[in-house]
Amino acid sequence: MPEHIPENSVGLVAPQTFQCNEPLTLNCGKTLDSFELIYETYGELNADGSNAVLICHALSGDHHAAGFHDAEQRKPGWWDGYIGPGKPIDTNKFFVVSSNNLGGCRGSTGPTSTNPATGKPFGPDFPLMTVKDWVTSQSRLADHLGIQNWAAVIGGSLGGMQVLQWSIDYPERVRHAVIIASAPKLSAQNIAFNEVARQSIMTDPDFHEGRFLEHNTSPKRGLMLARMLGHLTYLSDDIMGEKFGRQMRSEGVQYGFDVEFQVESYLRYQGNKFATQMNFDANTYLLMTKALDYFDPAAEFNNDLNLTMKQAQSDFLVVSFTSDWRFSPQRSREIVRALVSNNLNVSYTEVESSQGHDAFLLPNSHYETVLGEYLQRINTEVSA
Amino acid sequence: MPEHIPENSVGLVAPQTFQCNEPLTLNCGKTLDSFELIYETYGELNADGSNAVLICHALSGDHHAAGFHDAEQRKPGWWDGYIGPGKPIDTNKFFVVSSNNLGGCRGSTGPTSTNPATGKPFGPDFPLMTVKDWVTSQSRLADHLGIQNWAAVIGGSLGGMQVLQWSIDYPERVRHAVIIASAPKLSAQNIAFNEVARQSIMTDPDFHEGRFLEHNTSPKRGLMLARMLGHLTYLSDDIMGEKFGRQMRSEGVQYGFDVEFQVESYLRYQGNKFATQMNFDANTYLLMTKALDYFDPAAEFNNDLNLTMKQAQSDFLVVSFTSDWRFSPQRSREIVRALVSNNLNVSYTEVESSQGHDAFLLPNSHYETVLGEYLQRINTEVSA
Repeated sequence: MPEHIPENSVGLVAPQTFQCNEPLTLNCGKTLDSFELIYETYGELNADGSNAVLICHALSGDHHAAGFHDAEQRKPGWWDGYIGPGKPIDTNKFFVVSSNNLGGCRGSTGPTSTNPATGKPFGPDFPLMTVKDWVTSQSRLADHLGIQNWAAVIGGSLGGMQVLQWSIDYPERVRHAVIIASAPKLSAQNIAFNEVARQSIMTDPDFHEGRFLEHNTSPKRGLMLARMLGHLTYLSDDIMGEKFGRQMRSEGVQYGFDVEFQVESYLRYQGNKFATQMNFDANTYLLMTKALDYFDPAAEFNNDLNLTMKQAQSDFLVVSFTSDWRFSPQRSREIVRALVSNNLNVSYTEVESSQGHDAFLLPNSHYETVLGEYLQRINTEVSA
Repeated sequence: MPEHIPENSVGLVAPQTFQCNEPLTLNCGKTLDSFELIYETYGELNADGSNAVLICHALSGDHHAAGFHDAEQRKPGWWDGYIGPGKPIDTNKFFVVSSNNLGGCRGSTGPTSTNPATGKPFGPDFPLMTVKDWVTSQSRLADHLGIQNWAAVIGGSLGGMQVLQWSIDYPERVRHAVIIASAPKLSAQNIAFNEVARQSIMTDPDFHEGRFLEHNTSPKRGLMLARMLGHLTYLSDDIMGEKFGRQMRSEGVQYGFDVEFQVESYLRYQGNKFATQMNFDANTYLLMTKALDYFDPAAEFNNDLNLTMKQAQSDFLVVSFTSDWRFSPQRSREIVRALVSNNLNVSYTEVESSQGHDAFLLPNSHYETVLGEYLQRINTEVSA
């Protein structure tokens, strides 16, 4: 293993592809005749297949949750701090599966894939996804891997919504549902933030009504703005104050529009990195925000979340973070109340953190302990 | 008076222009050889000039705070609910002065004015303003109007910052300082929101590095995004929930990018109105956000707000609104503590409201009573 890869890493990993040739009819009414999901696994599936854990990613995440693709890669997968031998999601115990969502831009079938009907990229013709569609496609992956039920399905933010939907749609296939920094549906304010991000992208002249790949370009300005806005709302006011305060760059006030405050520098850097270096697909970004907006499982159950969660049979761990204002603890407690009203086993922890919504990705000893101890208690000897 | 003009309106008003030919050296180091301020007045100045009140406007405000410019105008000035005969800022008692800030785009000298050096609009060459510069220019207007001291200087948000600066720079000219929904300086999060708004405008290809007027265009997309983001942050999560919730337009989910949720419709409408119908100047918008970012009067006093407010001699009314998260009550209390530490007379009210930052412009009986009663107690018989 290359020198810089630490001992508690899952090490070098290679993505795999699941080709599903069974047609998938989506919530929007359209059908994909076939699709591919790119995924990674960490750890070993045990003999009775009872130790499998599914990781669901958030808006800009992907299948590469832990480890390294090659010796050159300096930064490991996006949740590497939480997945690995001896880590909270312990690969000595669990077989961890992480896939890029359908409609994503990191290898699963999505807007950048070739549309078989035209021979060109799908672009804006790729159907809009819902959280329910993702869960269905992930259930196909589970079938393919021979996993009858998951020891746990785990996700934060939009990932947590997928976990909630799993527990409603496939109650018998989820033994433990771990919902982190999430909500049973977006508020009007959440939708509004997504709408500003979408308008940033869609009004960029390089968007070309979504056919930017055919024009050999991409709406980089719009993506940059969307990402800046995202970052802003993922951080708390407090942590921005701690990190940047009103610190100026060394030159001090210039009375101009170059970067003056450190926080400006940070946001521009993050925005540019996302739009250029990371080359995130704009149609995927749009589609992900729409899936967030649409998510409202109670809508099928007379807008009654208690009634909705009557479907569930899993045990639950729900985690929120005190300074998260985009998905506040109040929203997690709505989920908890609905679970409790159905006499389900539920553990709830509100973790003290100044990191805002981003806390679910960052080191935090309380959070690590809560998650690790909960998962250690899961019985993986006997299949349910 | 036209039929639709109510009795408690200041009625028809005509803007006036103050031409100042005394050069003004600005904080940025540049000098304006002369400048114009457009302003309106409501009520009558009394014999000893002791009943004059100055209104300071916020980011996108202007001099037209009350009444109507002509019989065709359906919507009165921006603070008409609070200024008029019998209203909290009672024009039966006070002579009210309201000017468009220097650098504005509604008639005062600003980026859309002709640069005498080039014969073209100033555009991006117009110097950046600070709150201190505005206060200096307003003091010139006071001189011009023969007002030795103001019975009160009143403003909300960025307007409140001007009031605070008045009380520091001209302590003997402000008898009462009324600071509403404001802060002693922006937080990193506030600056970050402004930076996203600025990047929206400056990355719009129609911005032309600020010389859009010379190209017969304007960065409408960028202005629209900036305004959408502004509106989003001026409203509370609660009031957005009350107003829009997750309501869909009548067509329901369309699985597309046309407006689906009511909150999207509202934001797009507000953004478009600002960028097209209201034709707000993009350079003015940029300049106003920079003045907000720069405001930090304590920086001149060893970053000690208590020491800063030692300069003040006015009595103070400070008002905040419970659901205002852009300028939260906590920020108003910072001001109050600094005033109290200097044994100044200060009244502080935290008004219960679900309206967010916008509350300072909207009807609210508690707020109206607090403001009205405070101002009624001001002695306007004897000049200070």
